Amino acid sequence: MRDKMYSSELLQRAIEALASLPGIGQRTAYRLALHLLNQPPSYTEEIASALLNFRQKIHRCLHCHHISDEEVCAICRDPQRDSGTICVVESIRDVFSIESTGSYRGHYHVLGGVISPINDVGPEDLYIEDLIKRVEGQEVREVILALSATIEGDTTMQYLARLLRPHVERVSFISRGVAFGGELEYADEWTIAQAIRFRRPIEDFALTPRAEDEE
Amino acid sequence: MRDKMYSSELLQRAIEALASLPGIGQRTAYRLALHLLNQPPSYTEEIASALLNFRQKIHRCLHCHHISDEEVCAICRDPQRDSGTICVVESIRDVFSIESTGSYRGHYHVLGGVISPINDVGPEDLYIEDLIKRVEGQEVREVILALSATIEGDTTMQYLARLLRPHVERVSFISRGVAFGGELEYADEWTIAQAIRFRRPIEDFALTPRAEDEE
Repeated sequence: MRDKMYSSELLQRAIEALASLPGIGQRTAYRLALHLLNQPPSYTEEIASALLNFRQKIHRCLHCHHISDEEVCAICRDPQRDSGTICVVESIRDVFSIESTGSYRGHYHVLGGVISPINDVGPEDLYIEDLIKRVEGQEVREVILALSATIEGDTTMQYLARLLRPHVERVSFISRGVAFGGELEYADEWTIAQAIRFRRPIEDFALTPRAEDEE
Repeated sequence: MRDKMYSSELLQRAIEALASLPGIGQRTAYRLALHLLNQPPSYTEEIASALLNFRQKIHRCLHCHHISDEEVCAICRDPQRDSGTICVVESIRDVFSIESTGSYRGHYHVLGGVISPINDVGPEDLYIEDLIKRVEGQEVREVILALSATIEGDTTMQYLARLLRPHVERVSFISRGVAFGGELEYADEWTIAQAIRFRRPIEDFALTPRAEDEE
């Protein structure tokens, strides 16, 4: 590899660092490094400090474990939001996904994953104890379980439901069925079976998803 | 934008920094930022320091202006390489491209661009004076002009050829013609005309490009 031989080690290390990010290959990393070189050093300095600041200063919310610039996140601090409803999700990514729909006005609880014996994740590895403390400590009318529709997600929801029921009036889980835009022909049998099982009265039918639907 | 409203400012700034890189959109930047969060802080620290080190410590070679970890680049320092041949290119990217073919064993000279009145780039904005000083100061048998096959590239090559001829035995330019894999049907007229004009004896014909061809 003559190209490697004559290349600068500083460049090589920058390329390796960029290529260690998911979805960024060697070629893209090389292109990005040369882009940094074409810009004033202040540009690279700004990027580096934004990433460092983010990674080093970000908090996990004391209540819900969502990311936050302060000890308690903006959602938990918002007096407009309903603290009597807690939506349990696997990751902060899911919080952002649900928030982007604008259809939920309650609080969250980020578990940090799902119970998965194969991946060596047990209940003690997740923020489950914290969740139980929350529903014991404050008045919670409903806990919505919004975990993945996988075997691990199902197992975790069943486990949580058993723990939560003594403390919470209503434990629910997000509905399952044919996704928006999904053609029945291509849906798997399990999805179709669930969709039939959880059929709704025609009065609930809406041609396009409405933001108010879940409210 | 409810998602923006509840998002952390630290996250927002990290996303903006990543999305300022070419080819990285908001969604990819968001995904990358969350990836950083899932790794220990040392991971982000390593990336940031690799980028900062690269941008702040990299040199441009005193002789050829290629990037280098030291004052003089590895190519100019290599006693195995022929200092009597200088290949003039626009950018360090071109040096890497030519090096990756393994077919050139001489030195380089990075111009830093081409003469382009439209983009307000004159001869004084490029490392042309340095190039002339090099051919005056050391024995150079040949200068190969390897600039883009564009009007600006052509103009710059003609300009350089006029300046170089008094000092150098041979001034050449890389051949033009139908690119490897190019079908004649889709080649433009100018390319075909150049390919005919610069036709070579059939003895030079090779079915696949050979690394030794240029040697």
